[in-house]
Amino acid sequence: MSVYRPRLLTPGPVELHPKAVEALARPQLHHRTDEARRLFKAAREGLKQAWNTQGEVLVLTGSGTAAMEALVLNLFAPGERVWVPVHGKFSERWAEIAEALGLEVLRSGLEYGKSVPPELVEGLQGPFHGALLTHSESSTGALNDVKALAQAFKARFPDALVVADMVTSLLVSPVALEPWGIDAAASGSQKGTMCPPGLGYAALSPRALGRLKPRGYYLDLAKELKVQGEGESAWTPAINLVAAVAGVLGAVLPELEDHLCLKAKQNALLYEAGEGAGFKPVPEVKSPATTAFYLPEGVKYAQVKEAFALRGATIIGGQGVLKGKIFRVSLMGYSDLYDAYAVAELIREVAASL
Amino acid sequence: MSVYRPRLLTPGPVELHPKAVEALARPQLHHRTDEARRLFKAAREGLKQAWNTQGEVLVLTGSGTAAMEALVLNLFAPGERVWVPVHGKFSERWAEIAEALGLEVLRSGLEYGKSVPPELVEGLQGPFHGALLTHSESSTGALNDVKALAQAFKARFPDALVVADMVTSLLVSPVALEPWGIDAAASGSQKGTMCPPGLGYAALSPRALGRLKPRGYYLDLAKELKVQGEGESAWTPAINLVAAVAGVLGAVLPELEDHLCLKAKQNALLYEAGEGAGFKPVPEVKSPATTAFYLPEGVKYAQVKEAFALRGATIIGGQGVLKGKIFRVSLMGYSDLYDAYAVAELIREVAASL
Repeated sequence: MSVYRPRLLTPGPVELHPKAVEALARPQLHHRTDEARRLFKAAREGLKQAWNTQGEVLVLTGSGTAAMEALVLNLFAPGERVWVPVHGKFSERWAEIAEALGLEVLRSGLEYGKSVPPELVEGLQGPFHGALLTHSESSTGALNDVKALAQAFKARFPDALVVADMVTSLLVSPVALEPWGIDAAASGSQKGTMCPPGLGYAALSPRALGRLKPRGYYLDLAKELKVQGEGESAWTPAINLVAAVAGVLGAVLPELEDHLCLKAKQNALLYEAGEGAGFKPVPEVKSPATTAFYLPEGVKYAQVKEAFALRGATIIGGQGVLKGKIFRVSLMGYSDLYDAYAVAELIREVAASL
Repeated sequence: MSVYRPRLLTPGPVELHPKAVEALARPQLHHRTDEARRLFKAAREGLKQAWNTQGEVLVLTGSGTAAMEALVLNLFAPGERVWVPVHGKFSERWAEIAEALGLEVLRSGLEYGKSVPPELVEGLQGPFHGALLTHSESSTGALNDVKALAQAFKARFPDALVVADMVTSLLVSPVALEPWGIDAAASGSQKGTMCPPGLGYAALSPRALGRLKPRGYYLDLAKELKVQGEGESAWTPAINLVAAVAGVLGAVLPELEDHLCLKAKQNALLYEAGEGAGFKPVPEVKSPATTAFYLPEGVKYAQVKEAFALRGATIIGGQGVLKGKIFRVSLMGYSDLYDAYAVAELIREVAASL
């Protein structure tokens, strides 16, 4: 018998919120019913509030990547030029999506772990139709000041649209659309909303709504806009997850400020424990979504993973060029301050065991 | 107090299989773990067996429509020409998808409710790169002989690819890929596999696998093919649903023949009850996925819906041109012969109450 219960310490999927579990335990809903429409509207209203936007949030059945592609597909035409600062797996994904959809991409490559300095914008040669930014680059644990980046970019390219990956910042770190000069953003259900994976969120400011150039079929946001106001969706939605998201938002939003403080405090405790135990952090500016530490000299990722697994915990390693070089531990899921103390202790024990 | 428990009698979403409920009640899985990979492989192997193919079935996080778009996107290039016989909302969807993706579409329009006569192929003027067929047109309740259609089409256009919407026939009616001359097919989780909505399945015969021309990003099937063999997916999958599908297939496939007999028998009982009570069936050739009856003269859909709702049952009306003209009742979800007798009785009671 293990004295530890299984525990997901990964930056998505995460431990589910009890309101998600409760919603998911209900009998199957049909999406074309009043109850389903009520839940769909509640989820969308909650997401709009979480995102601080007067625009719209569209709920898509797909991963966060589907929401990212939907934004590029619907906001830019082939041949248009976008700036993508690349400093991790997810910012790299923006560049790949834009290229796959026929856009011209200017990449500014930075070392993985770095955040993007707003001064970088000064050296850019226009024209640009947009910038694709990453708020919380969870492959490295880095946070970007997307507000400063958006403002710097728009000061030079006022007609451009600024789109941000907020996949692991929504409900984890403060976020905003219009107040920050962000025109559109994406996230997904298995991150800060503490639900199972399967929904992508596409947030559009009023400015972005006025600039839609829909393409494709399944990810055509104009089709979704027409019907989501009524709590419907263009295609059969993962309605069970919509109900779960509505439940979680109903519980978290009234205490959002406290919730974001908790996430910041938890992350600080985990970094403090790891650094105290001798692990070197990967990011320069730390996102509350996940900690990321370099593997100590001579230690393989499998050893660290196994040391956590012995204590019931599932963690995750590096992606892309950081594969085999780092490990990541996250309390983005349902967890409180006790959990942070417990996981801080696990980190110390793991460090001592290596 | 109602003497009826709530019951979904809609052609998707449907009443969940207990193995789905069981899988969905487990703690959140991380998709990059051995357990998740084992379940992902089990779901894919089961779907390949269900589809009777030596090719591959790719599991996508999205609706059945996403799987349909993925097939058109990856098997045809813009400007290529496809034949789409249109006789319901879902065959219409094939035409819309192909047009949205830049294909040239030849529609053969038939009255809603009709099935497509294979002789229609004789009059077609080529060239064609493919045909997009609908096996079970659940908007009208009609079944097509897609085997005969595929054979007739390939006799005239041997290089063409034949793609079929098998969204409501997989695990409901016998299906096959290569043995029927079908190159690719789509379905989704909330139909015959009796799980919540959120997964689309894209089945590809060996011939289709040799003809992939990937486009786009999220629905790029070449990316999925590279990793799904190992139980991974290109993007974060709705892994909870994958586990549910694996559980249901493990229970249903060993008794598939009996299961398909049950579905046929249930549907026959419901049609018998409805016709006996004076309702006129919509389809010429009946699919076991759903019954579809015309509303009697002077009766509004809302009355029929309400009469079923009083008895705990959620049914659905018509779509597209059949909206306000028909109603549909389905036992595609988890149900047995007792349920069919009970629902047959409901149909008789509803008819008597109008």
